[in-house]
Formats: sequence, C-alpha cells, structure tokens
Amino acid sequence: MTGLTATPVTGIGEVRSGDDLAALLAAAADLADGDVLVVTSKVVSKAEGRVVGGDKEDAVEAETAAVVARRGPTTIARHRLGLVMAAAGVDTSNTEPGTCVLLPLDPDRSARALRDRLHALTGANVAVLVSDTFGRAWRLGQTDVAIGAAGIEVIDDHAGRTDTHGNPLHVTAPAVADQLTAAAELVQGKTTGVPATVVHGLGRRVLPRGEHGPGAGALIRPEAEDMFGLGAREAVMSALGDPPSPGFGAPAPAEDLLAAFARMGHHGEETDHGVRVVLPVDPRAGGRAEAMLEAAAHAHGWQRVATHADSVTFRVATP
Amino acid sequence: MTGLTATPVTGIGEVRSGDDLAALLAAAADLADGDVLVVTSKVVSKAEGRVVGGDKEDAVEAETAAVVARRGPTTIARHRLGLVMAAAGVDTSNTEPGTCVLLPLDPDRSARALRDRLHALTGANVAVLVSDTFGRAWRLGQTDVAIGAAGIEVIDDHAGRTDTHGNPLHVTAPAVADQLTAAAELVQGKTTGVPATVVHGLGRRVLPRGEHGPGAGALIRPEAEDMFGLGAREAVMSALGDPPSPGFGAPAPAEDLLAAFARMGHHGEETDHGVRVVLPVDPRAGGRAEAMLEAAAHAHGWQRVATHADSVTFRVATP
Repeated sequence: MTGLTATPVTGIGEVRSGDDLAALLAAAADLADGDVLVVTSKVVSKAEGRVVGGDKEDAVEAETAAVVARRGPTTIARHRLGLVMAAAGVDTSNTEPGTCVLLPLDPDRSARALRDRLHALTGANVAVLVSDTFGRAWRLGQTDVAIGAAGIEVIDDHAGRTDTHGNPLHVTAPAVADQLTAAAELVQGKTTGVPATVVHGLGRRVLPRGEHGPGAGALIRPEAEDMFGLGAREAVMSALGDPPSPGFGAPAPAEDLLAAFARMGHHGEETDHGVRVVLPVDPRAGGRAEAMLEAAAHAHGWQRVATHADSVTFRVATP
Repeated sequence: MTGLTATPVTGIGEVRSGDDLAALLAAAADLADGDVLVVTSKVVSKAEGRVVGGDKEDAVEAETAAVVARRGPTTIARHRLGLVMAAAGVDTSNTEPGTCVLLPLDPDRSARALRDRLHALTGANVAVLVSDTFGRAWRLGQTDVAIGAAGIEVIDDHAGRTDTHGNPLHVTAPAVADQLTAAAELVQGKTTGVPATVVHGLGRRVLPRGEHGPGAGALIRPEAEDMFGLGAREAVMSALGDPPSPGFGAPAPAEDLLAAFARMGHHGEETDHGVRVVLPVDPRAGGRAEAMLEAAAHAHGWQRVATHADSVTFRVATP
C-alpha cells in the first residue's frame, strides 16, 4: 500500500463571474490520470456568478429550507440542497466587503462539468470534488467536506466485507470524499487564496471516464433517518406546538399543582397569581438543562419570574 | 506553500497487551522532525490492555456517560471522556471474536507518552495523534477524528485574523487534528492491518519539545454549548419527563378535546374509551415527524391504536 500527496494549486488570482475555471485550474495544476482535484466551493461559486450584494441575513433566509437550531448569533440551517450547515452556506469571507458568496446552484453538476472540461483540456482522467467548510454537532472547529463530486465513489461501503479476524464490517463506510477535502484543507488554509489542491496516489478510487459516481449528494443523511434534524430545544418546541396547541396543558387547580410538585420533590406555594415553584437547575449541565426547562415551562404555560445560579422560579397560573 | 505526504506504516503485526508500541512504531516508520504520526486508537488500546471479553452491550453501557439518541440497533452515546459516538467507542472489529476493544483510558496521555518515547528512541520531534472512526449527525459515512493529541495545536483559531479582502475571520477555526486523522485514514483503510500513518510536510504545526499543546480533549464541544446534546426525540422525552410528570397533562373532558382538535383542523370522535382522533403524518418527513408525534402523544397521555401510510390514529382517554 502506498501513500498520498496533497499539493496546493497556486497562481490563480481572483476568480470572477464567467471565468473558465477549468482552464485556470488546468494551467496552474499538473494533473495526471488518477488524481483527485479538490476545488473550494468559493471559486466555483464566483466563476458561476453566485455572488450577491445586500444583507447577509436576507441571503441566509433565501438559501434556507429549514432552521435546524438557533442560539445567539448562530443559525444552523438545512440548505435547500439538504446540507445542514451554519448560515446555510452564505459566506462573507474572501469576497469583497458588502457581498455574499452563495453555494453553487448544483455542486455535483459543477463537479461533473469541471471534470469533463479538464479532460478535454489536459487529457487526464481525474476526479473532482467541490469542498466547503462545515461545523460539526459535537466537536469544535470545522472541517472541509465534499458538497460536489464527480468521478469517485464518495463512500467506501464495507458491507459484506470482513476484517482480518473474520468479523463482519457491516457498518463501516468511510466517507472518502470528505476525508479527501479535509486533507486538501490542510495544505490550502483559509487566508492564502489557494483555491484548489491535487491529491495524488488514490488512483484506485477514481472512476473510469464516463462514470461520474453518485455525487456528493449521496453523503447527505436523508432527513427521515436524521436523529438530529432539530436542535434539542427546537425539537421540544416543535413537538409541543409553538405556540402550544390549544386545549392541552389546561390550567389545573392550585392544590393539584402543589401536590404534583411535592411528588416531584419540589416545594410550591400559592400566590395571588397562581402557584410559585422553584425548580433546580444543575449548573454543571448549563445551557441544555435551561433550554429543556424553558421548553417544558412553555408547554405547561408556566411563566419564568426569576433566574438564580442554581434554580429558576416559575409562576404557574391556575384557573 | 508546499504540500503534504501521508505514508502508511506497515509491517507491524498483531499488537498485544504490554507491547512497547512506540518501539514497534519507531522500527517500522521513518520519522523525522516535524512529522505527525497518526496511530489508530485500536492498537493503542490493545497495547494498553483495553480488550475485554463478554457481551458488547454490557461494555457499551459501562463506557457510556449518557445516551444521546437511540434508533433501532444504533445507540449514540456520550462516552465518559465526553466524546459523542456510536456504541461509546466499543469496537468488535479487528479483534478476536468474542472480545471488545474499549477506548484508551486517557488518549491524550497515551499520545504524550508515545511522543516522548518516540523522541527517546529516534531523536525526532514529532506530533502524535490517536485516531478513531466517528459517524456524523447529518452526513452518511464515517471519518477518522483525533481522540488523543500531543505536540500540536488541534484547532487553528483564526480569531483576530483577516482574509485578503480585509474581512474578519472570527469564526474560522479549522480542526487541524481531525483533518490530519482523516487524511491518514485514506491511506490506512479499515481491513488491512495498517495501524499508523506518517504525515510529512506540516512541520510548522508541530510544537517544540516540551510543549504538548491542549490535547484532543479541546476538540470536544462542551455539553453546555451543545445544541445537539440529545436526539430530537430524546430531547422531547427529556423535557416532558419520561415517564410524564404526574399532575400534568391531566385528562380533559371529551367535548373540550373534540373542540381543541377541531381548532387544529383534525376530526375526532367519542368512543367508549375516550376520544379517537386521526392525525396526519407527512410521509415525506418520514421518521422524524413520527417521532415528534409519538413524543407529543406520550406527553398528552394519548395511546397509539393504528398506523397508516399517511396518518396515525390515537385514542385519548377522558376522565
């Protein structure tokens, strides 16, 4: 087994709408059969004229199919292509101030067009990946993933194979395309204006001419199989109805509420406006516990009246 | 700017408890100052004796700090180290049948020990990453990420830097360590018994002797900042209390329920056992809508009596 090399493609200046990106890449890169060319979505978008003026928030809203989660200035959205990412892929870095770069309209089509044109220009049978920078649910920092692909199987599905001990590898399926874009980002960086990388040494993964493979759309987890299609707080609000469904969570008599709280280990007291109860918040659990409590309170029609270091006071209206 | 090479380390046989892994790696790899050595957690665990017999499910439970989400045979768990991953990192592949490999007890410590011992054996100042294979919330397939690190800044935080247009790059923070392990996986594969990879060409990222950096623990998103600390369904169950809090969701008179359903656009009918109502499920939304509905029904004390292609029938008990 041999290794790989990843070489940045330098010498490409600012890319503008209508530029022949494949010709720029072919002139700047030394491409051979079996190479994988990783191109940032930024330059693909610029060449395709996907740069808009105006407010970033308006652009994000236009590109968003659904909001997955929101906290403070951060919006995680499902882009109309199905990609779950911050700000629906709308980017204000490495573009002229006052402009936003949107994702390519169809990044798999962009990758196929680049691959075909690169072959026409150079004679080399390469795979093309269009990369973009994504955050992750449970990990800090970002990695580059493939949002467009042509000429490569984006996932290497091991179903049916066994390891050297004979154990089945049925759930093993490396996301080859995403690992290639991650390797490319290591040599490209973010600030240097290097828009592409040639990965050499994985020729066994490059498909023959005429076969483009499934495209990077095959890397998107279908929404119906997605256990994290909404943030924890957004899931609660969605399930309960926001605003709450009328007719449910109807107010209960104060004595019933006090008895219920007592069974849950909480002390409540009756006031002029209903029942006041102090519920504990575990400070170690931080924001999540608070969001859960907020959502539950919202569902039950409780009103938050005070927040303390380790508890929250809610008022519960009674009929 | 130059590129990188990733070269697999071959010729290391089966690793056993008590083996001097650093000596095996030093003999098999050609290490130089500034190299990054990526080692799979599998061989680190084997050398450290983290292989147990018995049932996989028992091992998963013992390694789990919290269940994040469950669907069918899949359990996403927060491992006691804070890592969110399938089956809490318990692995039955590439180990003798009937045994499970657990994650190293402290992978950052393992990485530091390997780095120091490799320096003693070879004189080379390298960085060491311990890698493992992780799924992702919104994308299919897996990528290798760093669960242990020594001698490298695992995240390249661009806060305070600007791009070539002068735009601030305040949220840009490439997860360098995770991209290095991803590159390594491309040349290692899963079935070939290649337990390590040398990445050459990123010497600018390797810290001087005596500085180990923050470790891979710094890549774990703190639970309090995690918008996806529970699956969508699990978040709902958690917020509502599972089982539901006594005293809430108290049964309502049948006529109130029927009126509430009518306001929501659903037709209900009174039966001997309560109110029967058919609620629509959008078949395009698939599992998620169903899970939401199940959770909401659970909260309100409804009982599912039938499932159809595009609707679900619930029975609602009335007092």
